[in-house]
Amino acid sequence: MFEPPVQRLIDELARLPGIGRKSAQRLAFHLLHVDEADAVRLGDAIVRLRREVRLCSRCFNVTAEEECSICRDTRRDSTMLCVVERAQDIAVLERTREFSGRYHVLGGAISPIEGVGPEQLRMKEMVARIEPEGVTEVIVATNPTVEGDTTALYVARLLKPLGVTVSRLASGLPVGGDLDYADEITLGRALAGRKEM
Amino acid sequence: MFEPPVQRLIDELARLPGIGRKSAQRLAFHLLHVDEADAVRLGDAIVRLRREVRLCSRCFNVTAEEECSICRDTRRDSTMLCVVERAQDIAVLERTREFSGRYHVLGGAISPIEGVGPEQLRMKEMVARIEPEGVTEVIVATNPTVEGDTTALYVARLLKPLGVTVSRLASGLPVGGDLDYADEITLGRALAGRKEM
Repeated sequence: MFEPPVQRLIDELARLPGIGRKSAQRLAFHLLHVDEADAVRLGDAIVRLRREVRLCSRCFNVTAEEECSICRDTRRDSTMLCVVERAQDIAVLERTREFSGRYHVLGGAISPIEGVGPEQLRMKEMVARIEPEGVTEVIVATNPTVEGDTTALYVARLLKPLGVTVSRLASGLPVGGDLDYADEITLGRALAGRKEM
Repeated sequence: MFEPPVQRLIDELARLPGIGRKSAQRLAFHLLHVDEADAVRLGDAIVRLRREVRLCSRCFNVTAEEECSICRDTRRDSTMLCVVERAQDIAVLERTREFSGRYHVLGGAISPIEGVGPEQLRMKEMVARIEPEGVTEVIVATNPTVEGDTTALYVARLLKPLGVTVSRLASGLPVGGDLDYADEITLGRALAGRKEM
């Protein structure tokens, strides 16, 4: 429909989640009209993202280094470990400023419907961190969904025999919701009011 | 908040119209998880867009060549010229399959509030095409807004002394709306029912 370089970009943009053909078209024409430097900077940021980013070898957060900035920060309390489903959940928790320990990214939640079992998640890697890092308390910050609840129970059963205190974010998060959309205050309260499992 | 390559991309994405910080974050993490080839293809399409695209030397449509595919198409009726505000309006009109002439992109509409007068638009270039291309009818397809109406009147006054029939898309388009969002049928009818000015 459009000339090839424009149509090609519209097709690529329309593959992104939440971006329909109309939005893709608007974005493509917006990029045609902004400063060329701005457009190139966006394109470069996308290309470089995958080249520069890898997963932290310890917690599986995204990072540009061998270990992420939180794992490298020696002031963090290594006895506390917060287990999350996805790397982006870390930023939401960090914004509460209520947690000074480290994180572990499972890479998802147990979901029999989607064929995700504990072996598809980074459970072994989590267990392997407990003793060497001297972890005494684990806070499970999976989403307040059926999958998140199942995952939290699994983590608790896995870690309690190791003598670790396992707690879960207090309710206060709307049930069926998504951690990613919680505001800082609600999430901060949920952290402070966490209950042992 | 996030590691540098991720934060950089979120910042760039959030500059796009209609994309807030939350959407930018979702998109960035989506791009972290899709096939690397897909992400690179999107980034390349953005970078290459500006390098490969220029404006058609005749009608100011976007194109990868000296002239756009419509201007190069010798089967198009060169006596009919459809004047639009923006290049993206051409694709919407093409989808109706009701128009077989050529286009002229003004680059906007007259808007005293935004400081856009006729001299900021490609009016001179439009007038210069009439005689050499043998244009006998001009259809003004500016948006059905105050600015679009003003522009249409200006075009009509400019071209009528040259002996050209000037018509405007029939009403049927919702007043105050945007041409870009019209459906093919409504727009096709508006084309067929155009009125001389």
